[in-house]
Order: sequence, then C-alpha cells, then structure tokens
Amino acid sequence: MPRYKLTLEYDGRPFVGWQRQDNGPSVQATLEDAIFRYSGETVAVHAAGRTDAGVHALGQVVHVDIARGDPAMKVQNALNALVRPAPVAVVAAEEVPKDFHARFSCLGRSYVYRILNRRSQPVLEAGRVWWVARALDHEAMTEAAVHLIGHHDFSSFRAAECQANSPMRTLDTLQIVRVGDIIEVHAAAKSFLHHQVRNMVGTLELVGAGRWQPARMAEALAARSRSAAGPTCPPDGLFFKAALYP
Amino acid sequence: MPRYKLTLEYDGRPFVGWQRQDNGPSVQATLEDAIFRYSGETVAVHAAGRTDAGVHALGQVVHVDIARGDPAMKVQNALNALVRPAPVAVVAAEEVPKDFHARFSCLGRSYVYRILNRRSQPVLEAGRVWWVARALDHEAMTEAAVHLIGHHDFSSFRAAECQANSPMRTLDTLQIVRVGDIIEVHAAAKSFLHHQVRNMVGTLELVGAGRWQPARMAEALAARSRSAAGPTCPPDGLFFKAALYP
Repeated sequence: MPRYKLTLEYDGRPFVGWQRQDNGPSVQATLEDAIFRYSGETVAVHAAGRTDAGVHALGQVVHVDIARGDPAMKVQNALNALVRPAPVAVVAAEEVPKDFHARFSCLGRSYVYRILNRRSQPVLEAGRVWWVARALDHEAMTEAAVHLIGHHDFSSFRAAECQANSPMRTLDTLQIVRVGDIIEVHAAAKSFLHHQVRNMVGTLELVGAGRWQPARMAEALAARSRSAAGPTCPPDGLFFKAALYP
Repeated sequence: MPRYKLTLEYDGRPFVGWQRQDNGPSVQATLEDAIFRYSGETVAVHAAGRTDAGVHALGQVVHVDIARGDPAMKVQNALNALVRPAPVAVVAAEEVPKDFHARFSCLGRSYVYRILNRRSQPVLEAGRVWWVARALDHEAMTEAAVHLIGHHDFSSFRAAECQANSPMRTLDTLQIVRVGDIIEVHAAAKSFLHHQVRNMVGTLELVGAGRWQPARMAEALAARSRSAAGPTCPPDGLFFKAALYP
C-alpha cells in the first residue's frame, strides 16, 4: 500500500483546527472524508503540526496510506476536486517510503505570524492578520526576540494544556520583518510547545508598543512561568509555513 | 466647507463596483451612507477610478466635501467605524484645497493584476487572484507586454461599453513579476479605457500559455479591433493600486 506525502494549504477560519474533533469541522476530517469519497478507504492522516482553530497553513505536511495505488499526481487532482468547497488544497504530492512519518520524521517546523500595524481595520487581509492599531517599533521587537533564540526552558510561553514532556526547546529563528503596514514574525524550530509562537508574538507586541523594554523578554524567559510573559495573540495571523525532512 | 482626500482599501467581492447603482451595494453608496450617518450630510464622493464589480482597491483615491469640518484624522476614524462590517477602510485622509479633484486632478493610475499559476485551486487567495492552472511562461509574457507600452490606439483592448472619447492612451508601465506561484502584472498610465487592463492580461495569458507567440501582441494592437485580442480576464485578480497627483 503506497504512502503519500501531501503538502496542504488551508484557510483556518472555518475549522476547529487540524485535529478531528466532535465540536465542528476539522482539516483532518475534511481530508479523510475526501479520501474516503475518492477510494472508499477509511484512513488516518498524520500531520507535521497540529494547528489550532483559526490557524492557517501555507505548507502543512501530512502523510497517508491509500491502497488504491494511483500515481501521486492523480491523488492530488482527485483530492483537490473532492475537498471543495472547503478552503483546503493539496499543493504538492509525492510517493514516499514506508518509514516516512509526517510528524516523527520532521526535522524542523517554521511559522510566520502576520501583524497588520495601521490605524484602519483590515479589509483585504481580514482574518489573516492580527490587527494592531497602535504603532509598533519593529526594531525594539527584534532586540527582544534575540533573547529567545537558542536552547531554553520555554515554560513562560507554554499553554497550560500543553502535552509535551519537556518545556525545553531550541528556537532556531525568531526574525521580525516589516514590509509597509505588515510586520511578519518568522519562527523556526525542530518543534514548538503549544501556543508557543502566539505567546511569543503576544509578548513581542508589548515590546513593540513600548510597554516593555526589550531586556524584559530575557526576564520573562528566565521566570519559567506563564504569568511572566505577555498574552496569547489571536490565531488569525498565524500560518504553518513549512516542515523540513531529511 | 473643507474638502477631504481619502485613500481607500476595499475588497470588491460584495460590491457591484465603485459606482452607485440600483442593482446592489456599491463602494460609493457604502461610503456616502457612512458619511450621512457621521455628519447628516448628503454628499457626492468622486473617485480617481471607477472600478468594476469584483475589482479590489489597495489605494483608491476619492474626494468629498463635508461641512461638519472635523480634522482629517477624526473623519478617517469616524468613517472607519461607520462603514463596518462592509470590507472598506479609509487608510489615509487629509484636507486638500478646493481645486483638488480625485478624478480630474489625477496624473496617473496604477493597477496590479494577480494570477495564481499552479495546479491546485486558490485557498488563502480565493477571490483575490485569477487561477490559471496551466503553466505560464512569464518571460514570453514580458516579451509580449513590451509591444503595448507607449502611445497607441487601444481599440483592441477596449470594452464595447467604453465611454471614453478616444481609444488613444499612453501606457507607461506593463511589467510582469513572478514571485513563486503568483504572477503579478503591473500597469500604469494617465488613464485606462474600460476593461483595458483585464483585456491586456487576458491576452497576455494566451502568450504565457504558448497559444500565442509574443509578436502576435503587436498584430492584435495594430488591428484596432476587439476581436483581434484575447478574452477579458475575471475581476478577481485586479487591484486599483494608486493614483498620482501633482
């Protein structure tokens, strides 16, 4: 039975998140249902990252075994036709060896968080940015971000519900890029704690707004306590960008 | 009575176009109604470019006289609150002299047309790109576009309903930029004929797909006949980008 690696783009707004749940439509259920209609098989799809409700993906990676055995391009085209009108697309598909696992083989995940920083509300970007009306100093945010890069105990940026065994993570990238009214925060690591990106961005916003000095980020990290850091920012601006494999 | 120059962003999808019409909501009516609720005045708003149904704006410019006489920033904030939930925002506002006219003082208009060129359907960009699944050669499109730059009779790219006195226009820019799966066509001129950008892009697509050689663009232009050029592409990918003033 061939195993396929699928790369997905989705708009997180109508979904309760990646994972199949009883309380509403999930990306996982949408894809598994499309596969059932395509091949009649009841499958389990495994993802590199379990995105939360409202979080988008530009390059989520999943794997799935489908006995029907079509070439990857045929699988891609069939699923793209069958998932509609749900805002999900299979943007790439390839057949992979049996030992490939979207979650366990993954060497790195990257996210981008987008802030619309202007006085007027989002229009063309509504639902796909966090709107911050007060002016943000992205250079101060960069100065603060540097304190988080590296191998640390990220308890201060970890959701209470986080199921990871350890709060230790190695943050490889936390880069702030301003393009006009948009501030992008790019984050990359082997893996992240639950809500880690949104908690880091929520804290960076305090620095950008001048409510925190950049050095306070180091203190928040050292405190190893969720209450020492800033709030969780909304899901709207978060995009699962890519997953890296050997 | 002060005159205000307002710069607007809007999502064209829910509108019948810029201009007030009987058959549905227009951007103009949405803005004029918001001004009525703000100041009690029945005003006429004039725009740099009358965009069609489904066409978006990043920087549409309008002017309007409002007797209430508030500072421009207050007008901007009030209108941004009152236009909601319509997908329109006033992204900039300033008071201008009485001889400023959004349409007649305008020295140049620029548009960007966005094509999503990939096999899978648009998801995050749905409604804001033209989806072209067949691979497009953007270098061939650039070669063809060069034939249209300059002062020409653009009858071949003019809608039958166009009300302009003359089909002569000077096209200053027609540039194709590819960024990943997105092909952007940037167009700038003092003014455009009705559907000119969409007819040019619809024809460029034939070149990109290899159905036309680039040189055929020059023949289509010389024919001065709408039937000599390609189809009108959909409004989804078109954005009024900016208007230039002295």
